[in-house]
Amino acid sequence: MSQAEQSSKQAVILTGDRTTGPLHLGHYIGSLRSRVQLQHEAQQFLLLADAQAMTDNVGKHQKVTENVIEVALDYLAVGIDPAKSTIFIQSQVAELAELTQYLLNLVTVARLERNPTIKSEIVLRGFERDIPAGFLTYPVSQAADITAFKATRVPVGDDQLPMIEQTNELVRRFNFTVEKEVLVECQAVLSHVARLPGIDGKAKMSKSLGNSIPLGATPDEISQAVKNMYTDPNHLRVADPGQVEGNVVFSFLDAFEPDTAKVDEMKEHYRRGGLGDSVVKRALNERLQEMLTPIRERRREFEADRGAVLEILRQGTLRAREVAAATVSEVKAALGLNYFQS
Amino acid sequence: MSQAEQSSKQAVILTGDRTTGPLHLGHYIGSLRSRVQLQHEAQQFLLLADAQAMTDNVGKHQKVTENVIEVALDYLAVGIDPAKSTIFIQSQVAELAELTQYLLNLVTVARLERNPTIKSEIVLRGFERDIPAGFLTYPVSQAADITAFKATRVPVGDDQLPMIEQTNELVRRFNFTVEKEVLVECQAVLSHVARLPGIDGKAKMSKSLGNSIPLGATPDEISQAVKNMYTDPNHLRVADPGQVEGNVVFSFLDAFEPDTAKVDEMKEHYRRGGLGDSVVKRALNERLQEMLTPIRERRREFEADRGAVLEILRQGTLRAREVAAATVSEVKAALGLNYFQS
Repeated sequence: MSQAEQSSKQAVILTGDRTTGPLHLGHYIGSLRSRVQLQHEAQQFLLLADAQAMTDNVGKHQKVTENVIEVALDYLAVGIDPAKSTIFIQSQVAELAELTQYLLNLVTVARLERNPTIKSEIVLRGFERDIPAGFLTYPVSQAADITAFKATRVPVGDDQLPMIEQTNELVRRFNFTVEKEVLVECQAVLSHVARLPGIDGKAKMSKSLGNSIPLGATPDEISQAVKNMYTDPNHLRVADPGQVEGNVVFSFLDAFEPDTAKVDEMKEHYRRGGLGDSVVKRALNERLQEMLTPIRERRREFEADRGAVLEILRQGTLRAREVAAATVSEVKAALGLNYFQS
Repeated sequence: MSQAEQSSKQAVILTGDRTTGPLHLGHYIGSLRSRVQLQHEAQQFLLLADAQAMTDNVGKHQKVTENVIEVALDYLAVGIDPAKSTIFIQSQVAELAELTQYLLNLVTVARLERNPTIKSEIVLRGFERDIPAGFLTYPVSQAADITAFKATRVPVGDDQLPMIEQTNELVRRFNFTVEKEVLVECQAVLSHVARLPGIDGKAKMSKSLGNSIPLGATPDEISQAVKNMYTDPNHLRVADPGQVEGNVVFSFLDAFEPDTAKVDEMKEHYRRGGLGDSVVKRALNERLQEMLTPIRERRREFEADRGAVLEILRQGTLRAREVAAATVSEVKAALGLNYFQS
């Protein structure tokens, strides 16, 4: 075993998703695909972040809780192996709330308000002055999620880097306060994959924008989505030269077609003129159908036995709870909150 | 049984103390004395608020944890009966942190910042812009403490009324959100006893101001404190008329001398002239010695067997945890967070 292999074996990864809807191709390319690989190389904890999703879904708690199983189905469908990755439900690990409570004392309100991610999300959600306290403090709860598992690597988008900074600040502050190295700093692992645009050409694929292709999409839904995809609005006749940049069909081919020579050839042809949108779309449709058919089928199999999926989540949550409880126990002992142990 | 007796039998009381130092005569008159009575009339939960004390004692966690047992000793010394009252340690009931987490989503940062109690405490502690997030949110954690036990009565000083308001707002907001009466509103029970001044005449008796008489004070410490008490600075000769208002010795006699006729007579004599400070102080000293001797002796007995005190706290915490866990389980079920129950 090489040194690189050995050190990655020891890595602990914490990642996951807010449970607000089933996952789509954007998640697949951005995170799911690499998680399937990483589970062989590192100890991976996958968080179904229902409690975090509650922070900006008050009154929509049913949506949040119903999607726990949907996201779990997506994980299993793409090939996350519960024997290799620990899939667990955040709200069922009380230790995370406990740890959050102690970390909250180590950060000021002003510091939380300066967090660029929170700032832009406040604008996005239109909270203005009416920010729920739970929303302002969720980066602390996120720091608890990460540190409870002593995660060393956290896969994030670059918009999430301030969260990792905040987490490491809390780690240093806590260890300094108790004069002991209890919590562990983590490293952000940035994805090198370009973000998948929505089928309408918008920068981000998102269920709420209605421009996504869910992982469980039917063959017809996939074909329809590809048919509706934004291409080059000036490419009116097949013979005309077309533009590849900003053309969603080519972005998708870049993301999902492993035969890059074929994609390069099509791009050149399209630019030159003489390659119709329908031909490129047919190629993409074939590729997506091929890729999503086994995922959809696995999803349906698991869907047919929800009891088994719940059992996977129960086992994963038990395992996650053991690890988190050990850390919280260390944290409390360092603060002297271990009255009943002798 | 009268209706009044019956309703007070069913009352649930939640009260307690931050564990930042041993308790003193101010606590005795303000809360401890009535708790000893109330334990016969209601179900009483007594919270040793170590986690709350941590919110503004970062780096001084040792002080907070060491005083858990000191405050417990004071409770037992004044006559709190662990068979009647449930004495428990906040940090050992993880469910309180869980409940806090969900309540935090139901209050805005702006609302927390408007809380008059928090506002004045921020000034008092010199936090200015550097308010720890845990300090801003502690009223929510306090609401969790109260509601986890479905407390109906919460003894408070009038400066704490905004906390009760905040708690009841959260109760209404939660029940409205889940469309179910899960949490219970509480009533503030205001003390009718005037606040005990410090021995230096300052409005508040406080350990940190060095003007308190701790419940475990030795006979010498009591005599010395009475000797140092602030009286009427213009009452220079015994024959001079003296002032009773603002005279700490008389405030103490009002608080601790049950023979009110005797106190009234002394006041009249003092006002008229002819009654020396030393005589009044001697009367107070006798009264305090008489009152504090059995308390100090009981405190010493318990102190000699810390293992037994810890066992009382362990049992109380177990009992408290059962009650809090039942409420949190209801809360989570109402939010749909009960995946593993069927």
